[in-house]
Amino acid sequence: MYNEGMRFGRIATPDGMCFCTIEGEGDDFSQLTAKEIKDTPFTEPEYTGREWPLNEVKLLAPVLPSKVVAIGRNYADHVEEVFAKSAESLPPTLFLKPPTSVVGPGAPIRIPDFATKVEFEGELAVVIGRPCKNVKAANWKSVVRGFTIINDVSSRDLQFADGQWARAKGIDTFGPLGPWIETDINTINVDDLDIKARLTHDSVTELKQDSNSEQMIMKMGEIIEFVTASMTLLPGDVIATGSPAGTAAMFDGDFIEIEIPGIGKLGNPVVNA
Amino acid sequence: MYNEGMRFGRIATPDGMCFCTIEGEGDDFSQLTAKEIKDTPFTEPEYTGREWPLNEVKLLAPVLPSKVVAIGRNYADHVEEVFAKSAESLPPTLFLKPPTSVVGPGAPIRIPDFATKVEFEGELAVVIGRPCKNVKAANWKSVVRGFTIINDVSSRDLQFADGQWARAKGIDTFGPLGPWIETDINTINVDDLDIKARLTHDSVTELKQDSNSEQMIMKMGEIIEFVTASMTLLPGDVIATGSPAGTAAMFDGDFIEIEIPGIGKLGNPVVNA
Repeated sequence: MYNEGMRFGRIATPDGMCFCTIEGEGDDFSQLTAKEIKDTPFTEPEYTGREWPLNEVKLLAPVLPSKVVAIGRNYADHVEEVFAKSAESLPPTLFLKPPTSVVGPGAPIRIPDFATKVEFEGELAVVIGRPCKNVKAANWKSVVRGFTIINDVSSRDLQFADGQWARAKGIDTFGPLGPWIETDINTINVDDLDIKARLTHDSVTELKQDSNSEQMIMKMGEIIEFVTASMTLLPGDVIATGSPAGTAAMFDGDFIEIEIPGIGKLGNPVVNA
Repeated sequence: MYNEGMRFGRIATPDGMCFCTIEGEGDDFSQLTAKEIKDTPFTEPEYTGREWPLNEVKLLAPVLPSKVVAIGRNYADHVEEVFAKSAESLPPTLFLKPPTSVVGPGAPIRIPDFATKVEFEGELAVVIGRPCKNVKAANWKSVVRGFTIINDVSSRDLQFADGQWARAKGIDTFGPLGPWIETDINTINVDDLDIKARLTHDSVTELKQDSNSEQMIMKMGEIIEFVTASMTLLPGDVIATGSPAGTAAMFDGDFIEIEIPGIGKLGNPVVNA
């Protein structure tokens, strides 16, 4: 649909907030440059001429979505660890996270005292590129701007107490998103993306999630067809495609990093609100 | 916080869309005038000088919310009719409807073929007036711009099949909102508002819901405290406060009208998508 193989981000500079492209290779911010664009990631980029080393500006969530649609129970091993039931008996389901839950890379995940057993869930996310409804699975790439990462932070206790998941997963800061939108959707194999989560607790870092998008029960095309059969999606809307097993509780002082090699790393500290 | 005792609406005219005040008494559009305002309902109104008889313009949903937060299971009789359980065993819960579900008065509710047993739910809604978080129950009026009506249209079959309610209640057009924002929150007794739903089927109109907001389990102040403990609310965000008993299925050709005397009437035709 537009250029391929770019990274789009959103940054705060001393002059304000803007969308930008991220230039350079790899994940090391000290080796990357943010180049301001005039409009948004949803049109052909035009550059303003202003640029900054990425480690001298603040990277924000790459979009402000009008809605975050999420697919729950999309990895069999995670269904078993959370619900102690088989994925056959609990098929994928749809839920929503509010836009106010979204924060960017590095922003603290703030845990209020009533939200207990707060766990990370590392997930592949897609950012929608154009208004769309009733998209057929085979055409999913035509409506997607690119891939990013979401951490679907969830209070497991509230999730079970409420029955509905909107509050447990909808608390302010419970939707870290980023680090950027990777637009190379024709080269990246969406059915073969490693998904890793590393939790640092008491200065010890452990690999907690180590899975691959091939484990997704509902595949990307099916997800887009399923969601758009019900809801119009708008540019910047985000779909979270579900979490594999390995989720675990986070506590004040922890640091959680989700990595999808080929897309990037999304890291956030954890604090008590 | 601002003027009291006004009605704010949003209209489409041959020149475009705008916010307006609705001048005149009662619910008869032929006796009402829409007066264009320069900005939004969230500031002191300044008039442009343009006005139209209300029945010569198209009334839209009074706001485009960034999120619609809804309280489920907030009337004991409705908990019993839907879940066949007591409200004590199934307390109020929170869910989200996507902004794309919102339509205005008179707009068709479009039922897709996969959404079966699609029922109306007439509800009192509040429109938030200022950004807020951690609001205490006693201070709820300080963050509310006014009252309106929402029809929380729900596919009962999808609701039970999915477990999560986001899809069953989040389909495009499943959130009729309006007819306007009534700002007279100090005069209106929020704990004593009649809520009525009249369904017209095969040219026969029946009163299906006939309740009162006094039946709400979680009261307005508690709702605002409960929601804002988790989520920042923004101007234009809507909270649906729950449906009383009497919900029933709607079919192609029906017309559903929700009335809350003192606020207004919200009527929508029903069609197959």
